[in-house]
Amino acid sequence: MAENNRTEITSLGEFGLIDHLTRNNDTKKASTLLSVGDDAAVIDHFGKQTVITTDLLVEGIHFDLSYTPLKHLGYKSVVVNLSDIYAMNATPTQIVLGLGFSNRFSLEALDELYQGVYAACEKYDVDLVGGDTTSSQKGLIISVTAIGEVTPNEYVQRSSAKTNDLICVSGDLGAAFLGLTLLERERKIFEETGAQPDLENQAYIVGRLLKPEARKDIVEWMAAQQLRPTAMIDVSDGLSSDLLHICKQSEMGCVLYEDKIPVHEDAREFAYKLQLDPTACALSGGEDYELLFTVAQADFEKIKSNPAISIIGYITEASEGKNIITRGGSKHELIAQGWNHVK
Amino acid sequence: MAENNRTEITSLGEFGLIDHLTRNNDTKKASTLLSVGDDAAVIDHFGKQTVITTDLLVEGIHFDLSYTPLKHLGYKSVVVNLSDIYAMNATPTQIVLGLGFSNRFSLEALDELYQGVYAACEKYDVDLVGGDTTSSQKGLIISVTAIGEVTPNEYVQRSSAKTNDLICVSGDLGAAFLGLTLLERERKIFEETGAQPDLENQAYIVGRLLKPEARKDIVEWMAAQQLRPTAMIDVSDGLSSDLLHICKQSEMGCVLYEDKIPVHEDAREFAYKLQLDPTACALSGGEDYELLFTVAQADFEKIKSNPAISIIGYITEASEGKNIITRGGSKHELIAQGWNHVK
Repeated sequence: MAENNRTEITSLGEFGLIDHLTRNNDTKKASTLLSVGDDAAVIDHFGKQTVITTDLLVEGIHFDLSYTPLKHLGYKSVVVNLSDIYAMNATPTQIVLGLGFSNRFSLEALDELYQGVYAACEKYDVDLVGGDTTSSQKGLIISVTAIGEVTPNEYVQRSSAKTNDLICVSGDLGAAFLGLTLLERERKIFEETGAQPDLENQAYIVGRLLKPEARKDIVEWMAAQQLRPTAMIDVSDGLSSDLLHICKQSEMGCVLYEDKIPVHEDAREFAYKLQLDPTACALSGGEDYELLFTVAQADFEKIKSNPAISIIGYITEASEGKNIITRGGSKHELIAQGWNHVK
Repeated sequence: MAENNRTEITSLGEFGLIDHLTRNNDTKKASTLLSVGDDAAVIDHFGKQTVITTDLLVEGIHFDLSYTPLKHLGYKSVVVNLSDIYAMNATPTQIVLGLGFSNRFSLEALDELYQGVYAACEKYDVDLVGGDTTSSQKGLIISVTAIGEVTPNEYVQRSSAKTNDLICVSGDLGAAFLGLTLLERERKIFEETGAQPDLENQAYIVGRLLKPEARKDIVEWMAAQQLRPTAMIDVSDGLSSDLLHICKQSEMGCVLYEDKIPVHEDAREFAYKLQLDPTACALSGGEDYELLFTVAQADFEKIKSNPAISIIGYITEASEGKNIITRGGSKHELIAQGWNHVK
């Protein structure tokens, strides 16, 4: 926060603040008929179906401002919602943003947060079309609702995986959790000793936590290939928890191969350094925002041609259970140990 | 809260909690294709346009749980959003709900809140199709996003009032503010002396604050009359603030007649008792959730036939200013003193 140049939000009033924060907010989508400034926004998806999702992010629960730049936080708040829209095989088109903040936040601080929000809107080609700003008694509260569009009935649920479908995941897993572990460690050291954080050049794992991306590219690639997943979810709670959602909602079982789970080299090395199991980080870590999906066996060649996608197992009948085959060849029941914010 | 029968939310976990809160959640709208349980909900408005609005309600800022029953709070959280959809001349169809709560809330308390949410959904014929539940470090946070539908290009903005249009308002104004004044007074007396609240049989004004309704009936009546307002807003900040929004966004002036402003008899009497001016309560009170709109002069007879609507003034050229004519016949500039949550 640029505390050297601090403008109190109270000096603008609520409507002045909204005018300030949205002064450069151009809308670009043809579907955005009416944006910020009225009781509600108006959208026309012109024959497509509308997809909607919402997330509530609370300081001290979902983010720690001692190591989270506000610009990154604004960016991430948008991206995690867009990720849910992509996980429906849909295209995000608009967001609305609710923001609650205590008087410790200056106008300059909110501007930084909004810079990140607008950067995400720009990158993912969505319009910010409405919102609500208010005080909070304590801390920062960010509520994002994203809406998107999908060709009628082309959306992909979690509940439609079939026996023998291939289980696929984009990118790599576990790095965001390791980034969090590193930042939390350094925060504690700083609090106890005052020592400046040593991030050990771990740009990759820290970046995965603080500035995740949604897999727009994967959804667009699949559309170009005319490849429609049979089921899909985004990896927010951890691979095991999210795969178990697909299994439960599809009433299926699964076999997952430990040696097929994609883990980035930097994440693997840092895990070893902390004497953590990289596979456990991928299974239980969460916040990777990769796409986890199933495809019919017939799509094997297409999937194999994309180096950003790993085939990590297959779907079975429910009676065969949910299992992981370790590198050593032994079989274990897959259990969910994902992040659980309600603790 | 039913503290005698307290179930800790942690005993269910996040997914168990969501299952519990949505166990009886039937969807009824044809437009709801996919509801709670996936990455996002899917909606098809079948050729209509989609309207979207969001509100963030924070404990200690927007509500005080010492005198707000959780069921009423859940109901009101939905209604205030639906009111924004009606103010676009649209019909609400779905909501998504984000909820943040500290560990002082039991499962029974959340059930009460949800009872109110579901009661509002039932009354206004909307589906709850998604949401997010999380912890908060302090207090209760409620984020509601409502979406609705409107016949293409039949939505009504704030910015389209024309010279000589009649200014109309539904119901009566100022009662919610007086209800708040009464409840705040009794809360302070209780804190200072322990005396039980004396609500003086003020059911009307207390009800207007704690359990407001959105004016679905007015929007439906206008549609049946083929009467389309030229501009519309809902009265959430107070009559003067909200009328000034219409004037500013329409680039118009106005004349408002003090003696035409509808104030309920119970509100008027209670205002006098507190030595408050009933007109000031109506102008600056807020939270009435009535509809404030303008219509062409040609629609005068139609409007006059509806006893729930008052004609309170007319729109002028911007150069004539924004004025109120008092009962005594003198003219004053209309100024906004609505509630400003960013203080």
